[in-house]
Amino acid sequence: MKVAIIMGSTSDLPKVEPAISILKNYGVEVNVRCLSAHRAHLGLSSFIKETETDGTEVIITAAGMAAALPGVVASQTVLPVIGVPIAGSNLDGMDALLSIVQMPSGIPVATVAINGSKNAAYLALQIMAIKHSEIKEGLLKERKQMEADAMKANDEVIEKYK
Amino acid sequence: MKVAIIMGSTSDLPKVEPAISILKNYGVEVNVRCLSAHRAHLGLSSFIKETETDGTEVIITAAGMAAALPGVVASQTVLPVIGVPIAGSNLDGMDALLSIVQMPSGIPVATVAINGSKNAAYLALQIMAIKHSEIKEGLLKERKQMEADAMKANDEVIEKYK
Amino acid sequence: MKVAIIMGSTSDLPKVEPAISILKNYGVEVNVRCLSAHRAHLGLSSFIKETETDGTEVIITAAGMAAALPGVVASQTVLPVIGVPIAGSNLDGMDALLSIVQMPSGIPVATVAINGSKNAAYLALQIMAIKHSEIKEGLLKERKQMEADAMKANDEVIEKYK
Amino acid sequence: MKVAIIMGSTSDLPKVEPAISILKNYGVEVNVRCLSAHRAHLGLSSFIKETETDGTEVIITAAGMAAALPGVVASQTVLPVIGVPIAGSNLDGMDALLSIVQMPSGIPVATVAINGSKNAAYLALQIMAIKHSEIKEGLLKERKQMEADAMKANDEVIEKYK
Amino acid sequence: MKVAIIMGSTSDLPKVEPAISILKNYGVEVNVRCLSAHRAHLGLSSFIKETETDGTEVIITAAGMAAALPGVVASQTVLPVIGVPIAGSNLDGMDALLSIVQMPSGIPVATVAINGSKNAAYLALQIMAIKHSEIKEGLLKERKQMEADAMKANDEVIEKYK
Amino acid sequence: MKVAIIMGSTSDLPKVEPAISILKNYGVEVNVRCLSAHRAHLGLSSFIKETETDGTEVIITAAGMAAALPGVVASQTVLPVIGVPIAGSNLDGMDALLSIVQMPSGIPVATVAINGSKNAAYLALQIMAIKHSEIKEGLLKERKQMEADAMKANDEVIEKYK
Amino acid sequence: MKVAIIMGSTSDLPKVEPAISILKNYGVEVNVRCLSAHRAHLGLSSFIKETETDGTEVIITAAGMAAALPGVVASQTVLPVIGVPIAGSNLDGMDALLSIVQMPSGIPVATVAINGSKNAAYLALQIMAIKHSEIKEGLLKERKQMEADAMKANDEVIEKYK
Amino acid sequence: MKVAIIMGSTSDLPKVEPAISILKNYGVEVNVRCLSAHRAHLGLSSFIKETETDGTEVIITAAGMAAALPGVVASQTVLPVIGVPIAGSNLDGMDALLSIVQMPSGIPVATVAINGSKNAAYLALQIMAIKHSEIKEGLLKERKQMEADAMKANDEVIEKYK
Repeated sequence: MKVAIIMGSTSDLPKVEPAISILKNYGVEVNVRCLSAHRAHLGLSSFIKETETDGTEVIITAAGMAAALPGVVASQTVLPVIGVPIAGSNLDGMDALLSIVQMPSGIPVATVAINGSKNAAYLALQIMAIKHSEIKEGLLKERKQMEADAMKANDEVIEKYK
Repeated sequence: MKVAIIMGSTSDLPKVEPAISILKNYGVEVNVRCLSAHRAHLGLSSFIKETETDGTEVIITAAGMAAALPGVVASQTVLPVIGVPIAGSNLDGMDALLSIVQMPSGIPVATVAINGSKNAAYLALQIMAIKHSEIKEGLLKERKQMEADAMKANDEVIEKYK
Repeated sequence: MKVAIIMGSTSDLPKVEPAISILKNYGVEVNVRCLSAHRAHLGLSSFIKETETDGTEVIITAAGMAAALPGVVASQTVLPVIGVPIAGSNLDGMDALLSIVQMPSGIPVATVAINGSKNAAYLALQIMAIKHSEIKEGLLKERKQMEADAMKANDEVIEKYK
Repeated sequence: MKVAIIMGSTSDLPKVEPAISILKNYGVEVNVRCLSAHRAHLGLSSFIKETETDGTEVIITAAGMAAALPGVVASQTVLPVIGVPIAGSNLDGMDALLSIVQMPSGIPVATVAINGSKNAAYLALQIMAIKHSEIKEGLLKERKQMEADAMKANDEVIEKYK
Repeated sequence: MKVAIIMGSTSDLPKVEPAISILKNYGVEVNVRCLSAHRAHLGLSSFIKETETDGTEVIITAAGMAAALPGVVASQTVLPVIGVPIAGSNLDGMDALLSIVQMPSGIPVATVAINGSKNAAYLALQIMAIKHSEIKEGLLKERKQMEADAMKANDEVIEKYK
Repeated sequence: MKVAIIMGSTSDLPKVEPAISILKNYGVEVNVRCLSAHRAHLGLSSFIKETETDGTEVIITAAGMAAALPGVVASQTVLPVIGVPIAGSNLDGMDALLSIVQMPSGIPVATVAINGSKNAAYLALQIMAIKHSEIKEGLLKERKQMEADAMKANDEVIEKYK
Repeated sequence: MKVAIIMGSTSDLPKVEPAISILKNYGVEVNVRCLSAHRAHLGLSSFIKETETDGTEVIITAAGMAAALPGVVASQTVLPVIGVPIAGSNLDGMDALLSIVQMPSGIPVATVAINGSKNAAYLALQIMAIKHSEIKEGLLKERKQMEADAMKANDEVIEKYK
Repeated sequence: MKVAIIMGSTSDLPKVEPAISILKNYGVEVNVRCLSAHRAHLGLSSFIKETETDGTEVIITAAGMAAALPGVVASQTVLPVIGVPIAGSNLDGMDALLSIVQMPSGIPVATVAINGSKNAAYLALQIMAIKHSEIKEGLLKERKQMEADAMKANDEVIEKYK
């Protein structure tokens, strides 16, 4: 079970790290790269090729502004590619969101929320879960926990405003 | 190999049909439903439960305007859920895009372009391909064909403007 | 006289509290819940059912980002549902506003301003006032006071810039 | 059971008519007016005063562009005021939506979707239903029918794509 | 020479003050009011009537969010009405801008930039200058000074980067 | 009584013509020009100079897209300059609106609604009315007529839906 | 004198053709290609390499939606790259505009207006004119003609509204 | 080798300085000016004329809000004009971006990212490089370095998350 995470700039690192933690908690091997589509396109292509044969099952990409990275990766692989728009410019991530989600037919990028790297990790896990039952079990367990936590928060709110 | 497609309204049907064709061409069984999160929530929950045990591997959802459907489906399953924002209101689909993509942590929806149901199908195929090698082969073949078609279109353009 | 207030996340609490105070000042019983449409949908449905029989007259909902909560609540009740878009993401609440206001026909959500929980409370009071004359009297009195305060502020401004 | 409907311009009439039909189907008396906040403010104020004593329980307002009407009405009554943004300018109704929904504290307008007059009618009915049990029964019945229709549409879709 | 300045809320005061100073520097009598279109509509109408007979030549209005004030004033006078959108909500003043500028035919509001109260003052002066030659002379002098200042700033920039 | 109307392109002519009619109905002399700030800047400057001495009291400008015309005119005169954003590009006039309204301090443009040339004419009349009492009388009369027409339209609506 | 024009899809052809005509009128050799960054990235890279040695001086690119093409080309050459956002999706070209203009530091794309291929051609000519005096002469002549045409249109407008 | 840089206001200076440094590092002579299109239009025209004969090859312009400067410069020269939208108002630079990029046919402005003055410098260098081989060599070297830096950052990321 292996996921590649590619960000466009080291400044995206703090926003990408939550995804790394979540995946590692599930025992997933994570290959992290910083390879801009614009500044390191050869290194990027070469890494994408690696992922074809090293057992990578999902690629997570994160980029801000023009955010070509997710689409460029998607165009060079048939692995599922997840795109995280990063709010790095003056436009609150709206530029990155549109650049990532509005892909032409034939080359999809699975786009998540602006700065939503946690959900990129969960989406990667849900994708791998169709093959790896232990991830599915983990996800079902975490969902139950999430619901329990939510109900506990609800109980505290009820108590507070009783 | 089975994919569920859920749309929020029968008016979304013409925009969803290309996804059905693409998936069927790959030999994928497609279960199509019209179950609004707002008008048919019990039927929706009951169908989502079905997908847990009937071999469904990916769920594609399509909805316009407030577009709660994709998120509601995602909250009731750990199967990968793909969301297609439909341009059905006065806002060109921007309302549906934001409603679908801006999901809270823990419940991802893999969002594609506005009216991008073709890419929803391809994304579903790429997801299933991590498990089904015949789909992967098909996708690689189609990508090669896509590139060949692109190069042929390029040749025609070169010829035309020589 | 009873109002239910449901928020999607405990982080919305500070933005919801003004509504609680206003309602309590009018002697309205307030049931506060934290029940995400995505993380606690069973608890949410079960609470909505409670409101049908416990004398609740209006439901106020508050949510950010994809903000499915108000619509999901509205789809499971015929009580009037008020929606408060919370500015919780990178998009200043525009995502929540569109997700809440652009509801399909048949399932309305009464949407107020971004972070406008005070007005959610006043709207709830105005709704209940069509049945409870004491609330109507209170509102008319408060409107008079509001106007008096406004005129007093005006007098101070006149004085200051004379 | 009486509802006032005020539109800002006769050109809004076709978009308002669905609300009139829905309300009349429920046996609600409907008072329709065309009174622009900008061109007929005295007539508007005088009509708002009428609604205070003629048994009106809800006021529906519809306006495009700067769309001051809903807020101006809301400032002169404590009846619940519903606002329908009309897409009448070059901006697809986004101008009217923001003008109607972004009300200051103390003067709420219950905003529905752009061109969403049907939901304005349903919201008015849900509000009156907290007082009039026959409306509540009608709404519950219509919701059941809506769900039945939705499930029937779903059956047709299932059949079509079997 | 008299200008009325009406703001919707005392919180707009710091953004309105630059206009007051500019006008007073030109010897213009300035009547400042804080009269919300929503909270003090009677006081507002009564003040607008005053302006008809007290020699007021231009009315400057400033308001945020739904910002009905400028249009409401404009509908009750044929004096030129200037509107300043105030960035007071989560939407950076875009809501106020659209609410103020998108007026229906027959009732114009002369809209200036978001938070642009200085330009509201200059616009008022330019309007009065068509009647009062001393203002025109002042404006022409100030424009010359503005240009001289601009050229001096340019000289400093040239010097700095020589 | 003289108004200059400058449009940026002959394609703006149909949107500008209503302003010409309104002004002529008031006996105002109208000087119409088509002088792009970008394609005819010398001719534009020369015409602006003419307006300084030929009795022009207000300048109306209309432009689409980057819409520099209103600001450029405003920078070369102290006559009041009105700007009409024209919806001529793919962005529904939002580009022209922002280009015209967001002027820097010292050089105001009185901006009206997108395609709002009628209101440009009325604003010009209201400005000239501070000097010319016959225009003021005409405007007051037209306002009364406008209100009478509005009340008549209201009567027809009342009749229709009785 | 040689310019390469690359579009992302044959559907962009009608919007690109005006650029081809303008360039050919100046005696510029034009190499037209249809090479999507997503569907033909190898062909694209190979063509970009060609431009390095075949005398190409400027590259014009045109693309819609996610519009990665201009940035991808820019990242593989130090020739000046011009980007034309094409309004091909539901978002009127706003998606393409942000995708093209918001490039990271070091890899500029010279962006022109949405669907602005004519200006892409003129920009290419102005760039080449710093080296080729015959183009500069042509441009100066055309500007003079443009101004003469503008003044003639102005004369016709003057005549029409005299 | 000479570049002119014109900003609209001294407040833009900190955002423009990176461009100056980059150009000077390449041995380019840089003429910096602060000449607002609105406040110093004569000084601006006179400086643009200078650039025609003093060997200037590219003009970089930077402006915020209505941002007429780049287009006004472009209309008075056939030198390539680069426009940098400055985020100086409440709208995050979106107003300046649209004002600069949406130029009419015949007068192009090469627009770069909001606050993207570094890329304005690189674009100017790439333009001059079609004539000056030493700049081209410098750019190719810097691109190689940029790629090397990117690959080194990638190595550090790999190391960190190994």
